[in-house]
Amino acid sequence: MQNNAVQSSKENSECFYCSKNVDKLMIEAAKLKVSTLYLNKDQTHQGRCIVAFERHVTEIFHLDDKEQQLFIEDVSQTARILHEAFHPDKINYGIYGDLVSHLHVHIVPKYEQSDEWGEAFVNAPLSKKILDPIGYQEIIMSIQAKLNP
Amino acid sequence: MQNNAVQSSKENSECFYCSKNVDKLMIEAAKLKVSTLYLNKDQTHQGRCIVAFERHVTEIFHLDDKEQQLFIEDVSQTARILHEAFHPDKINYGIYGDLVSHLHVHIVPKYEQSDEWGEAFVNAPLSKKILDPIGYQEIIMSIQAKLNP
Repeated sequence: MQNNAVQSSKENSECFYCSKNVDKLMIEAAKLKVSTLYLNKDQTHQGRCIVAFERHVTEIFHLDDKEQQLFIEDVSQTARILHEAFHPDKINYGIYGDLVSHLHVHIVPKYEQSDEWGEAFVNAPLSKKILDPIGYQEIIMSIQAKLNP
Repeated sequence: MQNNAVQSSKENSECFYCSKNVDKLMIEAAKLKVSTLYLNKDQTHQGRCIVAFERHVTEIFHLDDKEQQLFIEDVSQTARILHEAFHPDKINYGIYGDLVSHLHVHIVPKYEQSDEWGEAFVNAPLSKKILDPIGYQEIIMSIQAKLNP
């Protein structure tokens, strides 16, 4: 039950997301209502993002009703924007966090002609698609343009 | 874009969930506010369930605001009940649906000393833990007792 010991903390100094020590894996793209939207550096799936809740909770049911509603709105809005920007054939969502327990959702656009169609996306693939800085910036600008039209 | 062609249908006769042709993989356990709760027959992860939305939509952002709120309440309530009943160390959630596009969430209790801790759960594992009918009934009764205390 180790992970749940910190469920009520506002911040956890050892947490990857609380300490904003995320630069190796993702790039902050926007602040949403109750979460932060990050672009995943591995862009095997074009537009793959992470939406992380604004404080340190470990399970959806630790949110109060209003937070829960706003969090799903953040997730849903992100998915809609990715759909409009990149036209995937399906969007996949994963909340794992066995080891990094801070509540966060992987939002992964899937494409019929591309990797892992019809399978669960791989969370830490061995072969990653890393872009140059301009490549990331272009994707982030596409997302931001739809967030603030 | 094949999957999204049916997004506005109330029912899709070819859909696994709409036609209730799910008996090979799961057992209906309860009706929730806007969804059906199924117990997954593979119980590698004790308490693993599926929550399927009541009509045929393919993405969260196809729900209206009220449906979206009620759906996350159904998912959250299920996770809380699984947590209370089986004391997992973390709960994982996955929405995939590349091939079975009807909106449904896999809710997977994870245990530190058990399979796939620290990894994404496998969606269709080669080795499954199949129970006898009494085994499934006991788990379903534990869930129902907490749904209707």
